[in-house]
Amino acid sequence: MSTSIHRSQIESTLRTFDAGYRNFLHETPLMKLPGSALGIDCAEVWLKLEQLQTSGSFKARGMLNRLLSNTIPKSGVIVASGGNAGIATAAAAQLLGVPCEVFVPSISSPAKQARLKALGATLQVTGSAYAEALAACLERQKQTGALLTHAYDQEEAVIGAGTLAAEIGRQSSGTPDSVLVSVGGGGLIAGIATWYANTATRVIALEPELAPTLHAARAAGRPVDVGVSGIAADALGAKQIGRIAWNVTQAHVHQSLLLSDEAIRAAQLWLWQHLQIAAEASAALGLAALQTGVYKPKTDEKVCLVICGANLDLATLKI
Amino acid sequence: MSTSIHRSQIESTLRTFDAGYRNFLHETPLMKLPGSALGIDCAEVWLKLEQLQTSGSFKARGMLNRLLSNTIPKSGVIVASGGNAGIATAAAAQLLGVPCEVFVPSISSPAKQARLKALGATLQVTGSAYAEALAACLERQKQTGALLTHAYDQEEAVIGAGTLAAEIGRQSSGTPDSVLVSVGGGGLIAGIATWYANTATRVIALEPELAPTLHAARAAGRPVDVGVSGIAADALGAKQIGRIAWNVTQAHVHQSLLLSDEAIRAAQLWLWQHLQIAAEASAALGLAALQTGVYKPKTDEKVCLVICGANLDLATLKI
Repeated sequence: MSTSIHRSQIESTLRTFDAGYRNFLHETPLMKLPGSALGIDCAEVWLKLEQLQTSGSFKARGMLNRLLSNTIPKSGVIVASGGNAGIATAAAAQLLGVPCEVFVPSISSPAKQARLKALGATLQVTGSAYAEALAACLERQKQTGALLTHAYDQEEAVIGAGTLAAEIGRQSSGTPDSVLVSVGGGGLIAGIATWYANTATRVIALEPELAPTLHAARAAGRPVDVGVSGIAADALGAKQIGRIAWNVTQAHVHQSLLLSDEAIRAAQLWLWQHLQIAAEASAALGLAALQTGVYKPKTDEKVCLVICGANLDLATLKI
Repeated sequence: MSTSIHRSQIESTLRTFDAGYRNFLHETPLMKLPGSALGIDCAEVWLKLEQLQTSGSFKARGMLNRLLSNTIPKSGVIVASGGNAGIATAAAAQLLGVPCEVFVPSISSPAKQARLKALGATLQVTGSAYAEALAACLERQKQTGALLTHAYDQEEAVIGAGTLAAEIGRQSSGTPDSVLVSVGGGGLIAGIATWYANTATRVIALEPELAPTLHAARAAGRPVDVGVSGIAADALGAKQIGRIAWNVTQAHVHQSLLLSDEAIRAAQLWLWQHLQIAAEASAALGLAALQTGVYKPKTDEKVCLVICGANLDLATLKI
């Protein structure tokens, strides 16, 4: 079982994106603010505006990379997800002109189901919870032989996510002292931590108290199942940290911190009310960590926050 | 009557912003996309994401510059506006710690009134239409001697707006071939056109068919009153093009184009649905011009769109 991913793979994937896929995958902007602009006592806060990414989240990077790295059978691609990973898979499949089958539980929102259909995916609504949709998806995959995409625990997804960090590097003359990353199954942080491995940049993991996948694993010394609920569970609600993310974060992630739903919600509203950034709750953990002091930067520190998604119901941003 | 503004004044103002006011005024990101990412047959589309500016629109640049360029009396500043100019004035006054009185007509939205109050402004709700609020504001200004800010027809506002174009210059190694700018009273386009005067970059004016201030002036050969209504009237609803803007645009604006409300609305929704950019209708005219073909770029052209504001009711982005 190899879970070793190298910086060179991220560089190579970024070159592939640059060379032929910028009609789909955006180099999302990096916005730099003095800490004082956000009321934070640090030198600079950088915002990687990944909520502007195609498909509404960073997941498009990994899903496109997964599809480009494999021969896609006639039956196309298949995924179990009612959220960002499903939307990103469907978008990448649409781009490449291959069929896409998405299994979602019946609890998934009508809005997301409509979005998947609009992207040309064949929707299979199966079971009342995610686990049932996943089981049906895996069963179906055995029949069709379609290429399976996983939301976070596939190397191509992690490498794709890492291209986000590689972009930060070339968008800025300096490097951030720290990068604060929201963690669900860990695909994003695994990619980012791989990029910054053995550099001076510290990578900090942030999770909701109600979905502490990585935090619980670190406490137990191994990946364990956790209960997940709360404001960001639709995006950060993996039950267990991914195998790849576990290995990478053990080596290269400096801290794992937890945030209350109240703090996440306040930061999400702040982003809209003060910066006009419409972001989903899972994308607000970095600002929440700064605003609550759960993460305390040094006064000369440059902190980078990854605003990782915007698949939200806009009504939730109304006060 | 001098209405001559120089590029050097814009450079000087940008230096002032950089040196001491970046806790307030943001260098908003420039996002570059290939034309194909938006379905447009041109080389590149640049988005200046000014909707992320403090106070939710570019107006903060001009209002801060107005306040910094004048001695502010004890009575503070005064403005008649129920929209972006009022919000920007109140925000700048709050930053500088000076009193701010804002006159709005009774038709101004409760949300905007609440926002003005939250920024510490003293609100005067007077009359049923803007003209009455303005008359009351001017009467009051005579009594108090407060510094009056005007939404667009003051040199400091135009120079401040020009800093947006100066930022584009330093954010990019190349220059755009064209910049598409929404026009209300013309403060923004006057600043941008001053910056690009006598360069290879063409500046294109865009207005709603239902608020054709500049277009009507160009047809008449002089500023004339027009009726204003429609989807973007709250931001682009000046009755007459400003005196400064008239002079600058006559010399340096290459085309004046009109867009239907339907096209503006479609572009506004597209920005949210495909790029997760929450922008007000007035900020969507550039994309509308490209998507309708009202403005047809050359295939090798680099077009810059100014996404100028995000003071909107999010409910309007729901389909």
